[in-house]
Amino acid sequence: MNRRGFLGALALARLARAASPRVNAARLRQRLEALSVFGRPAGGTFADGVSRVAYSDSDVAGRRYAMSLMEAAGLKPRIDAAGNIVARRAGADNSLPAVLFGSHIDSVPNGGNFDGDLGSMAAIEVIQTINAAGIVTRRPLEIVIWSNEEGVAFDNGLYGSRAAAGDFAAAELEIVWNGVKQADAIRKLGGNPEHIADALRTPGSFHCYLELHIEQGGTLDKAGVPIGVVEGIVAIDRYDVEIHGFANHAGTTPMPDRRDALLAASHLTIAVNEVVRRQPGRQVGTVGQLSVTPNAANVVPGLVRMTIELRDLSAGKIAGLAEEIRIRAKAIAAQTGTEIAIRPAAHHDSALASPEIQKSIEAACARLGLRSMRLPSGAGHDAQMMAKLGPMGMIFVPSVDGISHAPKELSRWEDCANGANVLLETVLERAS
Amino acid sequence: MNRRGFLGALALARLARAASPRVNAARLRQRLEALSVFGRPAGGTFADGVSRVAYSDSDVAGRRYAMSLMEAAGLKPRIDAAGNIVARRAGADNSLPAVLFGSHIDSVPNGGNFDGDLGSMAAIEVIQTINAAGIVTRRPLEIVIWSNEEGVAFDNGLYGSRAAAGDFAAAELEIVWNGVKQADAIRKLGGNPEHIADALRTPGSFHCYLELHIEQGGTLDKAGVPIGVVEGIVAIDRYDVEIHGFANHAGTTPMPDRRDALLAASHLTIAVNEVVRRQPGRQVGTVGQLSVTPNAANVVPGLVRMTIELRDLSAGKIAGLAEEIRIRAKAIAAQTGTEIAIRPAAHHDSALASPEIQKSIEAACARLGLRSMRLPSGAGHDAQMMAKLGPMGMIFVPSVDGISHAPKELSRWEDCANGANVLLETVLERAS
Repeated sequence: MNRRGFLGALALARLARAASPRVNAARLRQRLEALSVFGRPAGGTFADGVSRVAYSDSDVAGRRYAMSLMEAAGLKPRIDAAGNIVARRAGADNSLPAVLFGSHIDSVPNGGNFDGDLGSMAAIEVIQTINAAGIVTRRPLEIVIWSNEEGVAFDNGLYGSRAAAGDFAAAELEIVWNGVKQADAIRKLGGNPEHIADALRTPGSFHCYLELHIEQGGTLDKAGVPIGVVEGIVAIDRYDVEIHGFANHAGTTPMPDRRDALLAASHLTIAVNEVVRRQPGRQVGTVGQLSVTPNAANVVPGLVRMTIELRDLSAGKIAGLAEEIRIRAKAIAAQTGTEIAIRPAAHHDSALASPEIQKSIEAACARLGLRSMRLPSGAGHDAQMMAKLGPMGMIFVPSVDGISHAPKELSRWEDCANGANVLLETVLERAS
Repeated sequence: MNRRGFLGALALARLARAASPRVNAARLRQRLEALSVFGRPAGGTFADGVSRVAYSDSDVAGRRYAMSLMEAAGLKPRIDAAGNIVARRAGADNSLPAVLFGSHIDSVPNGGNFDGDLGSMAAIEVIQTINAAGIVTRRPLEIVIWSNEEGVAFDNGLYGSRAAAGDFAAAELEIVWNGVKQADAIRKLGGNPEHIADALRTPGSFHCYLELHIEQGGTLDKAGVPIGVVEGIVAIDRYDVEIHGFANHAGTTPMPDRRDALLAASHLTIAVNEVVRRQPGRQVGTVGQLSVTPNAANVVPGLVRMTIELRDLSAGKIAGLAEEIRIRAKAIAAQTGTEIAIRPAAHHDSALASPEIQKSIEAACARLGLRSMRLPSGAGHDAQMMAKLGPMGMIFVPSVDGISHAPKELSRWEDCANGANVLLETVLERAS
């Protein structure tokens, strides 16, 4: 574009901003409430949360509702091979890659009504608001509701976005869960597992990916800040730990002669906490799973199996923490007469948000008069898969008391609307 | 008895001692090996241990074998109302209370071939040795094989000896385990649950109770001492602990905001160990059972249930330890933001061995040229029930490496024979 054209475009952009519309907060709330019915416990209310596990009848019904809303917004939703729901709104130049945004609507069992739902309903709301304002964006817009984000079904999370990013194995289609093969579950959603590769997106095939989501932690709520600008999705290292002591009679084995696996596990659990907390930063470390063998009140524990999970934006940092934990484990094993084996069980790379998009989101907040703060996402999201293909950005809104994956999961309606407006502003800016 | 009669009796006793017989060590071993077949794992050997849970077909078969040995020793065994096998050998004065001795032959699943078996087979061997020596004891002798000592079946240990001591509830007969009522299980052994009270013994109805048993701990083995003289059976206090934290996302919940129930449980497990070990003495404390909810690698634990078990000869001492543990738990709860509830779940009184019988056992060891040491029994035994009715004494032999309730449970044949000879000497002395 020449200098004159550039200035003209700039003027147009300024005009569009000055006139930039706002989402219909009441409609967004009403749709979140309506969506909550699919998977609601019998006789419950919105406050009783939702069980909308991917591929369940509730999921299918909720997806049908979401598609009806897309149609009402003038879109023609389609279901891709992996079961993702996608819909496109034309721009002024449809040869340009689209601004892609969305989330998911599947839930964990006894989950809440905001995780995924907010970003999905807000995406439709953004399209409908832009339609109502009669705005023609330069780039096309594309919204997406990813399938099986939670991974409760088939222990196979981010399935839809992984299929889009090519981060999956064909063998996953053969996994059987609750007596059903994953391929058949995808068919139930309207997907086409025989041609799963059709769901693939290529690097550069979208301009950027945006996702509005609840924080699921308590940082924004505690700080009283309405918008979080996500710096990235943390790297996760999980370790499986086996501690071998010697099971023996709790009455007849003198204290100095014991090789108590649970005593060693207790020292190690505390060591994980201490090592992680000793350094500044937002890294977290968790021993979430622990089982004792033989697990009888009158037997000194002979074997403990436990997990250690470490998360941080910096994969190098958590590798360093793991090294410190190994050193502590060695000392604990010597002190308790046990053997401690720590084996890597899973590694997920971090996915950094595009610095440019973080600035766009901050600028949108500034225009809307909303305070914001940067923070990492400790939870995984479909956005981390899209980050493999193009620039990614996420917008967080506060979770009251940091509660998520529970019926008590709650984000204030005002915060939901603010988040949707930040998404709208950012979409308009990125699409211009 | 006049002075002359006394001196005459003394001379007789000296004569008996000088001529006192020894058990047939080879026969004792052969019978322990033969008994091991009932409940042996398919295709296994003696070293593979035994599963002879009370009331099982293996238990019934093993009991039949034991009764055949009693018959071979000239006894007429009978089964009392509680399913105990008892047999009596007349003395010179059958109006006197008998010297009672024995043990049990039921086992835990995957148990060893010495726990209970040694004392039972040795009791029969003692009778047979006395028979062979042509000795007429002043008091009658009575041997007993108690039913369901281990309590794996019906979670109802020391059943036979409790029935004899009157320490049981009629309702126990109604307990259902593996689809069978305890009353029917007792019938399977040849007992008579309708007349369970017939199994009762009264205080003073026996002169004393003696039991030879493996130590099940490593104290004798470590000290290289062949005979343990039991000071008593420890008191046991068991507590059920519930720790309520708050289950939350392991990725999104910052470390300072966590209320991690497992972290609190780890501190408490270490506190139990520290409190118990800080004081001199042989007290023990164990956290043997622990379960985590929701027990997922990516969720901060919200709830932990665990047990604390404390044992010592002094009930007052373990009550004091529990008090110290409560104080530590209070501090841990405050520090971790959790709530810790410690509730008494079970209390077993200690049962002290008669000082006079301890001296008798030590004298027997001295006569046999065997070193001995006094020690408490950390495990429960039928002897603790008999202690409610009369003087009680127990003889321990070493358990190699202190292993018990496992196929690797082992006592050297030489130690088994030594223990049986100490039992024989003590029986002869007490019965004279």
